[in-house]
Amino acid sequence: MDLGLLYSGGKDSTLAALLLEDFYDVTLTTAHFGISDDWEHARETADDLGFDFRRLELDPDVAYEAVDRIREDGFPRNGIQHVHQHALEELAAADFAAIADGTRRDDRVPTVSRAQAQSLEDRHGVDYIAPLSGFGRGAVDRLVDTHLEVTVGPSEEIRRADYEAELRAIIAEEDGREAVRDFFPDHEQTYVTGVR
Amino acid sequence: MDLGLLYSGGKDSTLAALLLEDFYDVTLTTAHFGISDDWEHARETADDLGFDFRRLELDPDVAYEAVDRIREDGFPRNGIQHVHQHALEELAAADFAAIADGTRRDDRVPTVSRAQAQSLEDRHGVDYIAPLSGFGRGAVDRLVDTHLEVTVGPSEEIRRADYEAELRAIIAEEDGREAVRDFFPDHEQTYVTGVR
Repeated sequence: MDLGLLYSGGKDSTLAALLLEDFYDVTLTTAHFGISDDWEHARETADDLGFDFRRLELDPDVAYEAVDRIREDGFPRNGIQHVHQHALEELAAADFAAIADGTRRDDRVPTVSRAQAQSLEDRHGVDYIAPLSGFGRGAVDRLVDTHLEVTVGPSEEIRRADYEAELRAIIAEEDGREAVRDFFPDHEQTYVTGVR
Repeated sequence: MDLGLLYSGGKDSTLAALLLEDFYDVTLTTAHFGISDDWEHARETADDLGFDFRRLELDPDVAYEAVDRIREDGFPRNGIQHVHQHALEELAAADFAAIADGTRRDDRVPTVSRAQAQSLEDRHGVDYIAPLSGFGRGAVDRLVDTHLEVTVGPSEEIRRADYEAELRAIIAEEDGREAVRDFFPDHEQTYVTGVR
């Protein structure tokens, strides 16, 4: 069964791919707005890991709505949630029989409630699967340590294809590079470089 | 990493085992009260599938508490939930580094909330994993169809090692066989006979 997995090149979505690969024909699918070319990093990782890869083009208006929300809130959570829901809708409307993402049990954002999952499935006739939603942070970290090779560094230096990269790019362009730090806390990001 | 998975011999816990086997050293662990010998069916299935197997002895008082609750409610849901929580506590207190069960996203019972999961992990120093909690009913059914050989039949005829079997046995002994039907709706059960 064909499954499209929302893929950033980060550890969570890569681990999700490994959990699903024996059960589905997994295509790593990187959603992007066409604002930056960070999706290319995800494609490189997908190629290295031997997975099929696809780009999923999102509506740039949604990126600007998300940025407006982030400016209004002063933090990125709700803006990123807005983008994730749009990405899931677009993925569900594509031609996969099943779709998935890398959301974990302990994630604060993005989250997909049971009701949202059921609604996606019913409206689009797909299975929605969150293979990491039964794993806590500690369990995910331990699996990453044993199964993945990763590079860790500050958000600004690590290039990955998550929504944050493109939302940061819009803010940097419109408000200046300093503004990015006002909204996005400086946290460590990981980028997957291989499978152990 | 050693992982103990609560195992009934049914399709959900067997599918959970398949999802975890590449990532953990899985021991299928059947919790029982010593009331019936239904656990032996789970051991046979575990042997057939090539998994390690262990019995986990539960406190029979908990079975009688559950039966009292089922009589009081007129339906089994809360009684089964009571037993499941006890089983998870006992499993977490055993010597596994990680524990797991076969609860699905759409299960009404048993359920393990995010707060309960975190509490189990913090108090016992284990990872608690619910590998099917990101899969809906349809996705689970489709994976079962493609990966497992199962026998389907009415609850009374299919022998499996879930808590229901021992709770039914107590009610049958104390209240008569007819009483079992008053509390447990007649539904179809599955028993796994192999892997495709």
